[in-house]
Amino acid sequence: MSSQPLLTIIGLIHSPFKKPAGTPIQAALAGETEGIVEVFPAYADGLHDLDGFDRIWLLYWLDRAPAPQLRVVPFRDEVQRGLFATRSPCRPNPIGLSCVRLVGIKGNLLTISGVDALDGTPLLDIKPYVPEFDAFPQSRAGWLQNGGNGRTLADDRFTSKESV
Amino acid sequence: MSSQPLLTIIGLIHSPFKKPAGTPIQAALAGETEGIVEVFPAYADGLHDLDGFDRIWLLYWLDRAPAPQLRVVPFRDEVQRGLFATRSPCRPNPIGLSCVRLVGIKGNLLTISGVDALDGTPLLDIKPYVPEFDAFPQSRAGWLQNGGNGRTLADDRFTSKESV
Repeated sequence: MSSQPLLTIIGLIHSPFKKPAGTPIQAALAGETEGIVEVFPAYADGLHDLDGFDRIWLLYWLDRAPAPQLRVVPFRDEVQRGLFATRSPCRPNPIGLSCVRLVGIKGNLLTISGVDALDGTPLLDIKPYVPEFDAFPQSRAGWLQNGGNGRTLADDRFTSKESV
Repeated sequence: MSSQPLLTIIGLIHSPFKKPAGTPIQAALAGETEGIVEVFPAYADGLHDLDGFDRIWLLYWLDRAPAPQLRVVPFRDEVQRGLFATRSPCRPNPIGLSCVRLVGIKGNLLTISGVDALDGTPLLDIKPYVPEFDAFPQSRAGWLQNGGNGRTLADDRFTSKESV
């Protein structure tokens, strides 16, 4: 195992969102928007048994995120917050985490609902959503406890200069 | 942004668990076991505002996981399942995801409860746990719907030969 971890792209997320502005800031806020997760054929055998799960975690590489910043004004607030207290994309390791609904699987293609990733985002991992491990509805959410400013769609604040 | 994503280790997870056998298979099954997340000083400023959250997501590099396998017999079952329908560590990108309770923060050190990572595990990211984005208690969990075989502690099945 290398001491400098190297990632492998295992697929691509296809979505209607071509640029950050207007993209849902979280999967839970993306409504019924559908997307396709294309798992490269070499990994498709690992999808067996996934169809029994209502929801899956997608881990993906935020390939169009700007450079890391340790303080950010997040979409849901008007003041600066510590980066790790936000879900902002400009992280030292820009790994996105989305809980999406699994609509169907056909071969190596997953239809998902509630997608919030940009079209063409590199996929890193799929994990099943398991309420016993993942659901803590009463957990206090700091500055996000009351939903912050209630914003649901991104604007241009985290748009990388190279990508516009 | 490189097309071959490279990770940055931003800290270390310190836990009582020195080897896989006997380690909780999930944070939610680790009870009150405490650990320390050491965030390297260069990133500590990003911890601001995190103390208001009951729970945090830890993303970490499973540095002692064996080579990827697309079919595994997971801890909670006796038959082979597709890797992506399990939370097994032997993934193409061995990224661990744990929802732990945040007990306290002192400088760059976070005390956490419910730790399931091996001692010395490289930290990749911290995200706040936000029930609005992350909690779906009614979500159907496929072969894990009834808890599988109910196992809570790991054995040696995913122990890398190099690490024993």
